Amino acid sequence: MDIVIDKLNQRMIQKARARVNQLIKPKGSLGYLEDLYIQLAGITGELYPKINKKSIIVMAADHGIVAEGVTTSTQEITLFQAENMTKKITGVCALAKQVKAEVIVVDIGINNSVKNKSIINRKVKMGTNNFYKEDAMTREEAIKALDVGIEMAEKEIKKGVNLIGTGEMGIGNTTPSAAIVSIICKKNPIEVTGIGANLPEDKVAHKAKIIKEAIKRRKPDPEDAIDILSKVGGLEIAGMAGIMLGCAKNHVPVVIDGFISMAAALIAYKINPLVLDYIIPSHASEEKGAKIASEYLGLEPPLKLGLRLGEGTGAALMFNIIEAATYMNLDMITFDEAGFRVK
Amino acid sequence: MDIVIDKLNQRMIQKARARVNQLIKPKGSLGYLEDLYIQLAGITGELYPKINKKSIIVMAADHGIVAEGVTTSTQEITLFQAENMTKKITGVCALAKQVKAEVIVVDIGINNSVKNKSIINRKVKMGTNNFYKEDAMTREEAIKALDVGIEMAEKEIKKGVNLIGTGEMGIGNTTPSAAIVSIICKKNPIEVTGIGANLPEDKVAHKAKIIKEAIKRRKPDPEDAIDILSKVGGLEIAGMAGIMLGCAKNHVPVVIDGFISMAAALIAYKINPLVLDYIIPSHASEEKGAKIASEYLGLEPPLKLGLRLGEGTGAALMFNIIEAATYMNLDMITFDEAGFRVK
Repeated sequence: MDIVIDKLNQRMIQKARARVNQLIKPKGSLGYLEDLYIQLAGITGELYPKINKKSIIVMAADHGIVAEGVTTSTQEITLFQAENMTKKITGVCALAKQVKAEVIVVDIGINNSVKNKSIINRKVKMGTNNFYKEDAMTREEAIKALDVGIEMAEKEIKKGVNLIGTGEMGIGNTTPSAAIVSIICKKNPIEVTGIGANLPEDKVAHKAKIIKEAIKRRKPDPEDAIDILSKVGGLEIAGMAGIMLGCAKNHVPVVIDGFISMAAALIAYKINPLVLDYIIPSHASEEKGAKIASEYLGLEPPLKLGLRLGEGTGAALMFNIIEAATYMNLDMITFDEAGFRVK
Repeated sequence: MDIVIDKLNQRMIQKARARVNQLIKPKGSLGYLEDLYIQLAGITGELYPKINKKSIIVMAADHGIVAEGVTTSTQEITLFQAENMTKKITGVCALAKQVKAEVIVVDIGINNSVKNKSIINRKVKMGTNNFYKEDAMTREEAIKALDVGIEMAEKEIKKGVNLIGTGEMGIGNTTPSAAIVSIICKKNPIEVTGIGANLPEDKVAHKAKIIKEAIKRRKPDPEDAIDILSKVGGLEIAGMAGIMLGCAKNHVPVVIDGFISMAAALIAYKINPLVLDYIIPSHASEEKGAKIASEYLGLEPPLKLGLRLGEGTGAALMFNIIEAATYMNLDMITFDEAGFRVK
């Protein structure tokens, strides 16, 4: 898979840094807001980047691995919540409404017949296979799912959206995510396996054991993201990695959410490391492996809200902070413009 | 000083907790957003609290202690920035605009003649005295400044504002703030004294020495908040403590900002500890003593953005998160309402 991603616009980064250093405040005192603005300038090539339209793309898919007792919920919840998203009653819908972002729901592999017309049908297959027993999907299916992500990002961008967040719905998806983090960050599964959607603590060890054994059986190549996806991945994880690559390719910032997003970011990074420059982290997920993945990628999430819902909830909250960074640049003026000479 | 503050509505807190536990998401998975919603329910006595109008009240005042070389900026900057706030070009104005909050600027003690009619005149005195050499103000002046804060909060509340943030502008005000944190949290000044608005690191030791000697000379009673304010405090710090007390008295949540707000919160807490239930922390200031004060008060700020500007910038950003917590409650439905039986 070959995705061309440009480096950030260094000339514009320098101009933006010079400008932010001159705004009427002590130098550096707006901390990460300043970094965000400079990143947006580098991504867009604009000195005055503005957020016009915002979308959260929610990739929904099922996981064969649930047969191994790694979750408390059943697969039907994936479709139930995907449909609830079209009714605007789930967590991400509420938070997206606050920040005036649209929520786009994509069936990239729900293991159920989906009749709801508001769910975009890009089903690659009826959920992954149980990767404890066989590969999660074929190489071709992994690539197809990545392409769905790129396609969905580009569809939004064509509509004028210039800030995109990654969301997901998929019962069981903390298991492939932990597998991916374990493989790429070279950690023992027990170090990156958490409670997901309230799995009792005593079953976490079982979940980690399943992951460890599955990796041993499937033998994914840690340097080949497509191989990892096809052997132990998830369709929505591939789709989310595709969203990141599609945004980066089109010079649009992409906000990632929690643990599943971090796993997808690892995949996107392995496909093309330049994608990282276009990614904005949001909240520090309570899920155990999230911290390990974010440290590996050098993406320190600024919101510490103890969230572990997923869906794109943290990304939606972060849109506010990013928007604030653009307001900082648009509304503040420099000492010079204020007629004040700094000695 | 006697301010009556009601305890939170425990019955409503229980109802809110029961509701949030039933929303369609894994129990507890929206973390601090759930706590925020429950706190708002307890403050307002409403199961469906809404944010109607929002204000940041910026208290501006000067500090005689600047004569001791504890800052890099000169006092004229206080008026310069207070006026810039009325022109909507400073940091807090930009961030308040993003979240649609009004910025109210109050002259509670600017050491300058203020002609700008958009700055509310409640000048208690022309800045504090140099507390290295004499008391910062009289007991009566401290009480008057607290009363200005209460008055300003109540003025906003009468306008229909139901979310208030504390902001400030006052060259030199990290020095009295460090003194207050040192006294109340019983720390050596060097442990709570930071760079403020970019004081060179080598001058921080001097600043801490001035604070230590001043406390030794003034001998404030650590149990008497008015005594602390009058001996080593600031007029805007008293005003901010007053805002917190005024909000609590009127069952309105109050969002505090960074280091100066934390010092003011310590004062408000010493006047009536019940005020804490009405306070919402925002960002973790980079200023050294902020962490010590927030740990003392048990107020852990969720935004880690490396800010150290003040003005109310962190409070403005936090308004978004609080609003999101109300949307979570208003827009999400329960499993029962969704027609789903949890086994």
